[in-house]
Amino acid sequence: MTADAARRVRRPSTGPGSLLEVAVGEFIARGYDATSMEDLSRAAGITKSSFYHHFTGKEALLRAALERALSRLFAILDEPGATAGSPVQRLRHIVRGQVAVLTEDLPYVTLLLRVRGNTETERWALEQRRAFDTRVAAIVREAVEQGEVRADVDPALAARLLSGLVNSVVEWFRPGRSGAAELPDEVARVAFEGLLPAAR
Amino acid sequence: MTADAARRVRRPSTGPGSLLEVAVGEFIARGYDATSMEDLSRAAGITKSSFYHHFTGKEALLRAALERALSRLFAILDEPGATAGSPVQRLRHIVRGQVAVLTEDLPYVTLLLRVRGNTETERWALEQRRAFDTRVAAIVREAVEQGEVRADVDPALAARLLSGLVNSVVEWFRPGRSGAAELPDEVARVAFEGLLPAAR
Repeated sequence: MTADAARRVRRPSTGPGSLLEVAVGEFIARGYDATSMEDLSRAAGITKSSFYHHFTGKEALLRAALERALSRLFAILDEPGATAGSPVQRLRHIVRGQVAVLTEDLPYVTLLLRVRGNTETERWALEQRRAFDTRVAAIVREAVEQGEVRADVDPALAARLLSGLVNSVVEWFRPGRSGAAELPDEVARVAFEGLLPAAR
Repeated sequence: MTADAARRVRRPSTGPGSLLEVAVGEFIARGYDATSMEDLSRAAGITKSSFYHHFTGKEALLRAALERALSRLFAILDEPGATAGSPVQRLRHIVRGQVAVLTEDLPYVTLLLRVRGNTETERWALEQRRAFDTRVAAIVREAVEQGEVRADVDPALAARLLSGLVNSVVEWFRPGRSGAAELPDEVARVAFEGLLPAAR
């Protein structure tokens, strides 16, 4: 996203929810390290002290944004569809759920996927991402052991490619895009059945 | 990659090739916007004026790095395997080639994939990436038209997911990882045949 695109449609916002949204937009447009509290107050159209009324600072905003993305992603793992059924059925449920969260909470997930580990909060988020990926990888391994997933691909690699395929959607998905409702199923189909037709 | 990891094994380097390598490491670790010519000279163990002897500045370094990644990626599209054969054969060749370039020139491709369009050079690189993706998408469309790729996934989406799957390898691949030689074939297999076993 260009800086200009992220900054359009900016109105004064004072509630913690809308301040968070403004901050996430600025973090994505400028990069977290390059964004100052001045930038954030200007973008939100409020004074710095009003901003500090809601958040102790930049890192608290980052943490709140990353918590939102992570809590939605982890919630998928506890849904009945992710805990009952064959490993592949559970994986399909998780992939569809991830794509849905990603399209609904696009800026928050985008920020999460850009985290590089330069602050304590970023390192915490990286750990959480790893924990999520480890839980998915364990189900991929189960699927391989039960013969549901092809045995000629290393389970760790399969889990990583699955995660990469799903997460890449943030690179091009834009809210309001037609076909968003079908996207979770389409991504799951490509991930599990590949690009080649079923009959070959 | 953490800043520390990117900065280890740093010796004084004076040739333009090794200066470029040092600069790419710093850009990845600190972010391009946050890296100064001071940071780069310190990391390379030379004076700023020695640095300017080889490169006019930070953006020239970025451009040289991105050109290296892009020229290797575009070269794949002109290889015989990418120009002759059925669309799916050509796509498989391109995917294998992309994974090979990505593992061989990991920092350069990583930098290319992080470009967000904040400078003229970054916008040029984004255009080049789009041009590459457009050429691949045209072959995916051919493959769908010829019935080689499943018709129940939109060709534009298929091309994007293919690109996302391949590019996600930069997120976890590290040089020296065992199995690197098999990686291009494994990624192509997952992309085209999916995670489910062939017989189902």
